[in-house]
Amino acid sequence: MILRIDKLPIELPKPKHPSPNNAAAIQELLGGKFGEMSTLMNYTMQSFNFRGRNQMRPYYDLIANIAAEEYGHIELVSYAINLLLTGASKRGTDPTTAPLKENVDARNSLHFISSGQTALPLDSQGRPWTGDYVFSSGNLKLDLIHNFFLECGARANKIRVYEMVDDPTAREMVGFLLVRGGVHIVAYARALEKLTGANVGKLLPIPDINNKKFPEARKLEEKGLHRIMFRFSVDDYKRVGEVWNGPHPEDGSELIVEDAIPAGFAPPDLDEEPQLTSPGIDPEMVAEFAARLSR
Amino acid sequence: MILRIDKLPIELPKPKHPSPNNAAAIQELLGGKFGEMSTLMNYTMQSFNFRGRNQMRPYYDLIANIAAEEYGHIELVSYAINLLLTGASKRGTDPTTAPLKENVDARNSLHFISSGQTALPLDSQGRPWTGDYVFSSGNLKLDLIHNFFLECGARANKIRVYEMVDDPTAREMVGFLLVRGGVHIVAYARALEKLTGANVGKLLPIPDINNKKFPEARKLEEKGLHRIMFRFSVDDYKRVGEVWNGPHPEDGSELIVEDAIPAGFAPPDLDEEPQLTSPGIDPEMVAEFAARLSR
Amino acid sequence: MILRIDKLPIELPKPKHPSPNNAAAIQELLGGKFGEMSTLMNYTMQSFNFRGRNQMRPYYDLIANIAAEEYGHIELVSYAINLLLTGASKRGTDPTTAPLKENVDARNSLHFISSGQTALPLDSQGRPWTGDYVFSSGNLKLDLIHNFFLECGARANKIRVYEMVDDPTAREMVGFLLVRGGVHIVAYARALEKLTGANVGKLLPIPDINNKKFPEARKLEEKGLHRIMFRFSVDDYKRVGEVWNGPHPEDGSELIVEDAIPAGFAPPDLDEEPQLTSPGIDPEMVAEFAARLSR
Amino acid sequence: MILRIDKLPIELPKPKHPSPNNAAAIQELLGGKFGEMSTLMNYTMQSFNFRGRNQMRPYYDLIANIAAEEYGHIELVSYAINLLLTGASKRGTDPTTAPLKENVDARNSLHFISSGQTALPLDSQGRPWTGDYVFSSGNLKLDLIHNFFLECGARANKIRVYEMVDDPTAREMVGFLLVRGGVHIVAYARALEKLTGANVGKLLPIPDINNKKFPEARKLEEKGLHRIMFRFSVDDYKRVGEVWNGPHPEDGSELIVEDAIPAGFAPPDLDEEPQLTSPGIDPEMVAEFAARLSR
Amino acid sequence: MILRIDKLPIELPKPKHPSPNNAAAIQELLGGKFGEMSTLMNYTMQSFNFRGRNQMRPYYDLIANIAAEEYGHIELVSYAINLLLTGASKRGTDPTTAPLKENVDARNSLHFISSGQTALPLDSQGRPWTGDYVFSSGNLKLDLIHNFFLECGARANKIRVYEMVDDPTAREMVGFLLVRGGVHIVAYARALEKLTGANVGKLLPIPDINNKKFPEARKLEEKGLHRIMFRFSVDDYKRVGEVWNGPHPEDGSELIVEDAIPAGFAPPDLDEEPQLTSPGIDPEMVAEFAARLSR
Amino acid sequence: MILRIDKLPIELPKPKHPSPNNAAAIQELLGGKFGEMSTLMNYTMQSFNFRGRNQMRPYYDLIANIAAEEYGHIELVSYAINLLLTGASKRGTDPTTAPLKENVDARNSLHFISSGQTALPLDSQGRPWTGDYVFSSGNLKLDLIHNFFLECGARANKIRVYEMVDDPTAREMVGFLLVRGGVHIVAYARALEKLTGANVGKLLPIPDINNKKFPEARKLEEKGLHRIMFRFSVDDYKRVGEVWNGPHPEDGSELIVEDAIPAGFAPPDLDEEPQLTSPGIDPEMVAEFAARLSR
Repeated sequence: MILRIDKLPIELPKPKHPSPNNAAAIQELLGGKFGEMSTLMNYTMQSFNFRGRNQMRPYYDLIANIAAEEYGHIELVSYAINLLLTGASKRGTDPTTAPLKENVDARNSLHFISSGQTALPLDSQGRPWTGDYVFSSGNLKLDLIHNFFLECGARANKIRVYEMVDDPTAREMVGFLLVRGGVHIVAYARALEKLTGANVGKLLPIPDINNKKFPEARKLEEKGLHRIMFRFSVDDYKRVGEVWNGPHPEDGSELIVEDAIPAGFAPPDLDEEPQLTSPGIDPEMVAEFAARLSR
Repeated sequence: MILRIDKLPIELPKPKHPSPNNAAAIQELLGGKFGEMSTLMNYTMQSFNFRGRNQMRPYYDLIANIAAEEYGHIELVSYAINLLLTGASKRGTDPTTAPLKENVDARNSLHFISSGQTALPLDSQGRPWTGDYVFSSGNLKLDLIHNFFLECGARANKIRVYEMVDDPTAREMVGFLLVRGGVHIVAYARALEKLTGANVGKLLPIPDINNKKFPEARKLEEKGLHRIMFRFSVDDYKRVGEVWNGPHPEDGSELIVEDAIPAGFAPPDLDEEPQLTSPGIDPEMVAEFAARLSR
Repeated sequence: MILRIDKLPIELPKPKHPSPNNAAAIQELLGGKFGEMSTLMNYTMQSFNFRGRNQMRPYYDLIANIAAEEYGHIELVSYAINLLLTGASKRGTDPTTAPLKENVDARNSLHFISSGQTALPLDSQGRPWTGDYVFSSGNLKLDLIHNFFLECGARANKIRVYEMVDDPTAREMVGFLLVRGGVHIVAYARALEKLTGANVGKLLPIPDINNKKFPEARKLEEKGLHRIMFRFSVDDYKRVGEVWNGPHPEDGSELIVEDAIPAGFAPPDLDEEPQLTSPGIDPEMVAEFAARLSR
Repeated sequence: MILRIDKLPIELPKPKHPSPNNAAAIQELLGGKFGEMSTLMNYTMQSFNFRGRNQMRPYYDLIANIAAEEYGHIELVSYAINLLLTGASKRGTDPTTAPLKENVDARNSLHFISSGQTALPLDSQGRPWTGDYVFSSGNLKLDLIHNFFLECGARANKIRVYEMVDDPTAREMVGFLLVRGGVHIVAYARALEKLTGANVGKLLPIPDINNKKFPEARKLEEKGLHRIMFRFSVDDYKRVGEVWNGPHPEDGSELIVEDAIPAGFAPPDLDEEPQLTSPGIDPEMVAEFAARLSR
Repeated sequence: MILRIDKLPIELPKPKHPSPNNAAAIQELLGGKFGEMSTLMNYTMQSFNFRGRNQMRPYYDLIANIAAEEYGHIELVSYAINLLLTGASKRGTDPTTAPLKENVDARNSLHFISSGQTALPLDSQGRPWTGDYVFSSGNLKLDLIHNFFLECGARANKIRVYEMVDDPTAREMVGFLLVRGGVHIVAYARALEKLTGANVGKLLPIPDINNKKFPEARKLEEKGLHRIMFRFSVDDYKRVGEVWNGPHPEDGSELIVEDAIPAGFAPPDLDEEPQLTSPGIDPEMVAEFAARLSR
Repeated sequence: MILRIDKLPIELPKPKHPSPNNAAAIQELLGGKFGEMSTLMNYTMQSFNFRGRNQMRPYYDLIANIAAEEYGHIELVSYAINLLLTGASKRGTDPTTAPLKENVDARNSLHFISSGQTALPLDSQGRPWTGDYVFSSGNLKLDLIHNFFLECGARANKIRVYEMVDDPTAREMVGFLLVRGGVHIVAYARALEKLTGANVGKLLPIPDINNKKFPEARKLEEKGLHRIMFRFSVDDYKRVGEVWNGPHPEDGSELIVEDAIPAGFAPPDLDEEPQLTSPGIDPEMVAEFAARLSR
């Protein structure tokens, strides 16, 4: 079970200007093979499916806890997409003005036809996320190698989306994901090292570029955010620190566990888009509707 | 963001005996078009994508809060599948004994080849859940009608899986889902009623059979579980009660909001399956491995 | 069985100018989840699959009859796409002039590579229509709620495509579909009302915008086209009027059944596109070919 | 546009006994790559998309007319599936008796969970029919070769399903399809011969087995059903006989056009399945419901 | 088994300038339904699956040998895509310069996010090649008709891509494929003629345009490349000449078998793209890395 | 380009008895996410897409050379499937005997309906292999980690199929694949070690079971087959030995390169299946057909 906190892990700046194609590109980080839906669902399913939990508790705690953090990441990527799509067509209530006319050339038409200019669980080509992206073999070592690879692949995608979309909303979001995804890379490397003795951390960074090259990531790493494993639970996953400890393989700083999560920031309010009847409040019905709510 | 609680909403009894085909059928309730992955992700995405939140806060709170409850449902269905698959092949470490031989006739071969006899985000035919199952139009009334329909379709599937799998693990799980899914049906009906004045609740029950016919559901309804909306958050979604109130459309009992969630039960431990090297602990390495954990 | 009538329900004006991306957008109304292929095949399959037909004849007749009308809709949308693609590349027979060069940027490349600048059963992203879009649960009430939702979702898509494509061919087509789809929305609402007593019509319009706002729809509604159920059969589906009767939920006009269908209009002839060898008549072979036809 | 006739082209005998796996196999003939959905939609789309219709009218008429006949084939296959599924689980209204228990081993679980023991647009593996199965290149010769190949592939599938399912319902249905599909094979061969002079008919039969080997087909061919092209229209497609003429390539009989279609047979009534709440008539509500119908 | 030869069948000129959308269009010839992956895998699987090989050896040899040639075609199409993508973004190592910014509008975003500006097994819409494109019925005549149709469909696609992309890299590649694909068309026509006596060659050309209209193909045909079947094996497939003989159906030239394959040309070296960390050599590590290679 | 050698890498014993479900399970090793189609196409595409080849030649040679070996593996798995399906239905030419009747319960109906009792590029659930299984990021380190993971995942699948199918045909095939796949695991581990200095080999074996436990693998390893990299080319990929050298990480034996490939064994002849008209030789036509071949 979960308790939801209606907060985002960081504060997202407003975009410089709406951009359907920027939003379309960022979809890769939500519903692509290496998007946040994939990290969320892989670790979530692996935690449900964990065999021999008692003998391997620290690994269970690690995977289950990272899964919990990923929920905030699908949230963050979705809001970045939503902000970039807000205002991306002409506002108004008269369909004969063809308010979506410019959007006929947008790469992802579903943002305008299926959704109300908001995120969908699709990749950058508009193809749906699928359960086939989940790997849960039951063999712990193999699952950990998968997770290590998945996070590295995700990192490559984040870097390339960063290079493609220079809007500050996107960069702030990707910078944060690079740091936190980096924590997960190190976590799975550490887990493999603990399990086998192989010095997996020596493979890093993958791809061959340091987070410090991304100003939005660098400023967070300077605050130490790359070496903290937050515990996303009040009472559980307490043995995560048996894996998450020792020096960070890239800069040698000490890996630490924090027993609480950051306060977070209220998610941005998304303006109405009347040309999409979104949300479709009929002003004349407001009074009647308010009356019914109070009943 | 979320906090995970390592508990299931109910206590699952052990199956009478493992059954790959029972597990395969239950997959429909996890990864099918009307499975819990669908309810979870539909409401989750709709909550991220909500436009005009301030004006429509009670509806936002309702959708976001139900989304949070659904997480516990994918968890519960997954554990039911896992229990039914545990012990479903011959235990041992010698592959030449063909420990999976009987499973060559199982309907879902991926339970044995891809996963370690555990759940995957697939439906009862072994087809993956897909992001195309998410509907998020941005028009509140349309999204609510979708959600109402989705929950009714999900109810039909639950009933049929109940009729197909008579193992107590499955029945206990489905009975619970019928009750809680019933809450969501009523919630979306109430939301539509509040928004439009149409008496949507008069359509119930859909399909045309009462929850009381299912003993595992009936016992929970007798405790009132069908009229409680739990708030799955410490500080948020507080206006859910502006929609969730009044008499239950089927039995007239009073709809109430509870500000906390039930305590829950520890998830069952899943036995090791050595023939699948799941989780694959090499006993000879235990000492060395323990040493590394402590480092 | 069916008898085909080589007529379209309305006369389509020629487009102002060809437009691959306009055509690509309109594909959503053909092969999208809420496109006309979906309405056609949902009601068609539900009519084949109807259990207890004798007891529930008026509902069977309603669904089967609406299914028949939908055939004319896939035809109409296809011709609109075809007209918008006709002339969309440079005509000629010399491939070295790169007659499709401009089309390399078109959103749906399959219009030029797979088809001869004509419609395909794809959505606006070029993804195929799939049988998974068909819902046929066997429970009448649930199927009717599905159909009601499907038509409302289809209406949302039609409105948004109208707002995206301002070409008169598209607008005339969408205006007609809004009216006739509106008939189907009311029909399924009436069916649910008859079956349960719930005043489903009070939910309308969904989304929250009236057909009168669309001039091409308004002119048809002024002729009463929104209150007529045509019977698409010579001898069958005669009890459709037991459901389709009473006042229209939006304007109170009387719902009536007509025992014949409108005369219709000859479908537009589609010009040859020699650069696509479509249809590929070799002028030198015409005589020989004519001779063979007469044999 | 179409007019529906509520008749099947032949009378289907009742199955000897229900059989989920027989029904699952027959699905290939409905929603498989070479199923009747494919022949229906290929020719339908090609007829909408036909360029240069006036110059090539006989070919247009041929394709459009065959498309119309295929509608009766999806109907026939669907009813065969429905008959084989009717009674395939235990009838009753008490879910605790697990009325679907035996069906947990059925190859297509969706017949019991998603549908009310009826057909779905899926293949024999439960995979959906998809719009990608439609070929419509715009080049007439290429489209005709495709159609010729499609019909031969469909014939192979029909033969193999015949060999797999020996129930009389299935055999009667397949025997009929072999004959009428055979007409389409010859029609496309003739069209190619007319267009190019190549003696395509000499390739037949494909696969290398004669329809006479199938008693249910042989009896129909003895009545000449393999040499008749019915015109599925009151007023249109009148030049089909310019292609459909001359001797049948396999037995030399004269190919003829009939201007009307056979009378057909009322489709079988499908019994209620109360355990699936299909259709879900609540007996206690019959009076109230009848009253509403009359309003 | 195979032996690889690190050569391409022709020399590819450098593109005039990189072009993401040209590359995206060419993907249809790699991973589309009628792309080279399809011809490769169809004939490959048919050769593995051939029943009665001894009685039908020449046909086996033909299919198996053509399969081998197709490998060089997926290679050639891939390199054409790769050349058109090389240099398609701004080179450099500083992500803050947004080196992929222009590519946010590219039709296939996966070229920049998933791959390192290189080919993927996708079609022109970015949809993956799938095993469902393989037809292997086991009936020789039917498989040959499929192959004949597949090659004709592939020819149509090649022609249209030629007309869409006028870059010399693409034209040289397509010109070659038209000639060699033309050989395969004739080969399957001959096989059908040998098997049945039908004069299938008389259907050609399909579509109705001669290879001579494409200068890059014409020059190769003038060298006779359209009448040579190369034997892609040292010791096997020696009876291919029993099918491949007689006059070419289009120009009457003599069909001949060559027992060796052309020498070929070294594949172009693909420049590094540092902004994609492709391949990601860290210059500072070169010495250490070289040392390890020598160990 | 390639030269095909009509030999299999090992000699496959005849199955003890045909088994459709055994064949269906083995399909996972052909067309599953971790099947041989995946290893073949991943390394093949990566070799086409390699950037900076000159600087990184030994890695290019390694990947390209392993790709070549994989071709023999799809061949071997296909033949194993084919042998297990040969004779799996009743032989004969009279369809009324329902020769496929038993096969209506087979897990993969396409083996009998679509193919002539032979392999298809599908997984064990009958789902097609797809190009989405190919990973080719352009970053060498990331591609190598992917390949290492892919081979480990493939190993897990092989082991489980071995445990599921105890037929000697399957076991001989899987035993061989375990050894040769083991070579590829070590090769990618070595490549990563050379590139980064990380001792990746220390992670092995993954999953946690030694090849020695599989008698069919053990006998090959005793011959040293696990330490040989064959060079699948006459003249190319000569620097593969700069990566493939040093001690084997599991048993310390010396890794060696062989400049030729093993002689191999003639592939088994597959008997005709007349009930499937496979291959469909009409005995009466043999003379005429032979005459045409000689022309």
